[in-house]
Amino acid sequence: MQNRIITIGREFGSGGRFIGKKVAEALGYDFYDKELIGLIAEKSGYAEDFIELNAENRDNRTSSVMYNVFANADYAIGMFANFSVSTVDQLYSLQSRIITEIAGQKPCVIVGRCADYILRKRQDCLNVFIHADFASRVERSIQEYDIPEKDAKKEVQWQDKTRASHYRYYTENEWGSARNYHLTLDSGLFGLDGCAKIIIQTVKSFE
Amino acid sequence: MQNRIITIGREFGSGGRFIGKKVAEALGYDFYDKELIGLIAEKSGYAEDFIELNAENRDNRTSSVMYNVFANADYAIGMFANFSVSTVDQLYSLQSRIITEIAGQKPCVIVGRCADYILRKRQDCLNVFIHADFASRVERSIQEYDIPEKDAKKEVQWQDKTRASHYRYYTENEWGSARNYHLTLDSGLFGLDGCAKIIIQTVKSFE
Repeated sequence: MQNRIITIGREFGSGGRFIGKKVAEALGYDFYDKELIGLIAEKSGYAEDFIELNAENRDNRTSSVMYNVFANADYAIGMFANFSVSTVDQLYSLQSRIITEIAGQKPCVIVGRCADYILRKRQDCLNVFIHADFASRVERSIQEYDIPEKDAKKEVQWQDKTRASHYRYYTENEWGSARNYHLTLDSGLFGLDGCAKIIIQTVKSFE
Repeated sequence: MQNRIITIGREFGSGGRFIGKKVAEALGYDFYDKELIGLIAEKSGYAEDFIELNAENRDNRTSSVMYNVFANADYAIGMFANFSVSTVDQLYSLQSRIITEIAGQKPCVIVGRCADYILRKRQDCLNVFIHADFASRVERSIQEYDIPEKDAKKEVQWQDKTRASHYRYYTENEWGSARNYHLTLDSGLFGLDGCAKIIIQTVKSFE
């Protein structure tokens, strides 16, 4: 088993970014989370704020037909005019292309963005999902993201809904089903350092 | 974090029993899988074969209302006549009572039987789920359970369906959703010994 790439799906407020960063540091891997947004901005011309808002938050759609054009997409944003797809689909396509490219370069940790699915044909990925109980995610969203206490529950619920919808739309799989991942961890029980430790131990054990 | 009890949910053919036994041996914990059937037979008067067939294989029902009577049930099978429940419900009630009792006695590993849900109020459980790709589960069901090759795919599909239905009926949760467990592992990737090693390392790390 070779784990050159570690993908980390995560519930909002579960600490997936923090855990991924720790793992990357410990293993000497590159790290991509918001770092991907800069790359997409550079290639697409869209503003980073706009990308951050749209790259993982797709409105719920009734269609479950996967629209996956990234194999044919080009970096030039002008190319997208040839496809009848929304801006979010364009971002997904571009993001998929970038994720595929960076995975082919150096060992790395990639947080979110359906990376487990985008890289599904590779044999060197360890796909991880981090989740936690609702209360601790609400608490973390207040502490970590400065979300006002009165809004925090709604924000976590909204993020859950939009991430699940986004993942379902592009992968036709259920977000958070154990079967999509090699390893899932409850950061509410193990803590953030604890989750990082389990992932690092696992990667090192199977090298 | 104290893990006196380890519950292991598992897909058919994923090696959950083997992994659980290894973990129990390494940690010096008691082990319950088919061992529970003997206890239920003793208390209920039903034959072991009958219990094995019915204790985890409930027919699909459209109602998702949880029918959970174990808190009021008694060991005496005559008691069950007071409830308008099926034999499978009676077995679930008795099994729940026995699982609750053994969990209160000594550290143990319990495989299957909704033990994660039955013991949900305890603070000392580590809930694990083991899954694997369909092909390797079919292969294992042929090798390990002597299921004829021509029947193996259908058997794995049927077991998946009935376990999911049974779990959903009694817990109102989705079988195999990462959120129900603290740790889930893909035995197709890590292997059976590999999964046991990760669980043992995790328990020891958090003692």
